[in-house]
This record gives sequence, structure tokens and C-alpha cells, in this order.
Amino acid sequence: MTLSMYEASIPVFQRALTQLSAVLRKGAAHAEAKKFDPAVLVGARLAPDMLPLSRQIQIASDHARGAAARLAGLPRPPVPDDEATLDDLQARIASTLEYLGRFTPSQIDGSEEREITLPLRTGEVTLKGQPYLLHFAFPNFWFHVTVAYAILRHNGVDVGKQDFLGPLPT
Amino acid sequence: MTLSMYEASIPVFQRALTQLSAVLRKGAAHAEAKKFDPAVLVGARLAPDMLPLSRQIQIASDHARGAAARLAGLPRPPVPDDEATLDDLQARIASTLEYLGRFTPSQIDGSEEREITLPLRTGEVTLKGQPYLLHFAFPNFWFHVTVAYAILRHNGVDVGKQDFLGPLPT
Repeated sequence: MTLSMYEASIPVFQRALTQLSAVLRKGAAHAEAKKFDPAVLVGARLAPDMLPLSRQIQIASDHARGAAARLAGLPRPPVPDDEATLDDLQARIASTLEYLGRFTPSQIDGSEEREITLPLRTGEVTLKGQPYLLHFAFPNFWFHVTVAYAILRHNGVDVGKQDFLGPLPT
Repeated sequence: MTLSMYEASIPVFQRALTQLSAVLRKGAAHAEAKKFDPAVLVGARLAPDMLPLSRQIQIASDHARGAAARLAGLPRPPVPDDEATLDDLQARIASTLEYLGRFTPSQIDGSEEREITLPLRTGEVTLKGQPYLLHFAFPNFWFHVTVAYAILRHNGVDVGKQDFLGPLPT
């Protein structure tokens, strides 16, 4: 057995997004218990010039989708960023999980050397699949799922790191 | 070429910790510019019952060290959690980078199936090396480096995601 690009990517995104959904459910429960509009959480931020919860989740979703598509050599299907409620964000996570679930190991395994071109703000950059996954998709993805958690935690939602991590794989 | 356990672990931790050090330097510069005691940042939190910056960095360091040692089948050297200043935290990151730099691919490659026993609060759990890295060490490590960044960002330090990501690998 060796580490495969599929195992190193799809199940990692799936697990983290599943936990993000659970964390978000706790956010909805908190808003209900405290009787405030849950949409306040959708727009909540850690700093006035930092992106709100909705964008954190949209971008995390985009990095997971983007990694799956790029590693498989497929075009990235465009997704509108129009979520306005916690339910919308749950649907975004669910559709991302549905999308990730369509990929098979044979589509992604062997993509270590695949050339991936990223349209960054500073211009196009081409990376191989392995450094793309490990040093671009992962840091970006984990950054945004963690900041989404941190925004909810900062706003009083009763979540702990175990909610973020989920059950250990058996 | 295939994805190796070494490539999937040590350089990922090294890159993220190097950027965490850069982010922390911006924290020190911010404290100096605003003329407040930098130790305030060491104790800063996103929520009253969430761990402060110092613990976030200590735990991130521990997960990186722990992953390297466990995947290589070595004991984890104990490290005191006694950092009280930003300089202390920089030294903690530097010593972690020094420790990670001692590992060679031959020590870690092939550890996909190595049995790793974790002394969790809920009891001992044994995992194989691959799920341990992907589904335990990574989520924990990225969680704590991101929360460390978020604490500084929330406290007005002039950092952006590019500081977190660092330069792309070439």
C-alpha cells in the first residue's frame, strides 16, 4: 500500500466538510436558542476587513471542488456564490459533498505530476499535482474551514475542537 | 513518482510553520507600532473559553513534532509549554523547524501502515500512519495554525491570507 492522491484528497475534504456542516448546525441551534436572526451569523466576521462566514464556506467549497476537478483533469463547474442563509450554506456544503462523491480513485490517482494552471491575481502559475494539493489546495481549504469554525466560536456557538475533527477513522 | 509520506508531511509542516513565524513577526511589529505590550497578543483569544495564542502555537508545534516522530517510529521528545513572549513563541517555532529538519525521507516513507497509538482523553486509540496523518495530525495542525493567525488578525495585525500561504512552491 502507498499513499494515493485520491486518499490524500477526496476523503480529507469530505470529512472536513461533513464536520463543517455539523458545526453550522450548532450555529443554527445557537441562533434559535438565543432568538436572533441566523442570517447574522452568515455575515459574521473576525475583523471588519475579513471575509464573512458565507465567503469562508464558499471558498472552502471552491478549493475542495477545484482540487478534485483539477487533479482529475476536468473543467471546474461554475457555482454561483449566492448563499444568504445558513440553510443555503448547508446546501452548498451538501452539493460539494455530492460533487466530491462522484470522483473515483482511478480519476485522481497518478495525478502527482499532472500540470495544473492556477489563474491567480498575480497571473497564471503552473504547478504539479502533488505540490498543488499539499501546498496550495490544503492550506487554502483548511484555512477557510477553520476560519468558518472560528467565526461561529467567536460568536458564542457552543462548539469545540471535537466538532471540527469529528470521529476518528477506524 | 508517487506521493510519499515524507513529502505529504514534513514539508507541509515546515512551510506552514515558516509562514506562522512570519505572521507572528507582523504581530510584534503591530504591537510596537501601536505601543502596546506584545505579551497581550500571547494571551489573546477569540472567545473567553478558547485557548490563547500561546497554546495555539504550542499545540500546532506538538502536532507537527508528534507526526514526524510517530510516523518515524521514534519517541516524542517532551517540550515544556512555558512560552510567555512572542520571542519565546518564535523560538518554539524555530526549534520545531529544527526538529522537523532532522528527519529524512527514508525515516518516514513507507509509514502508511505503521500502527500509531494515540493517548486521547477518551482512552488509547490505534490508527494506521496514513489515516493518522490525513485525518488526525493534519486537521489538528491546520486548525491551530489557522486559529493562531485568526487571533492576530482579529486583534488588528495587518496580515492577509498571502502571509498565511507564503510563496507557491516552484
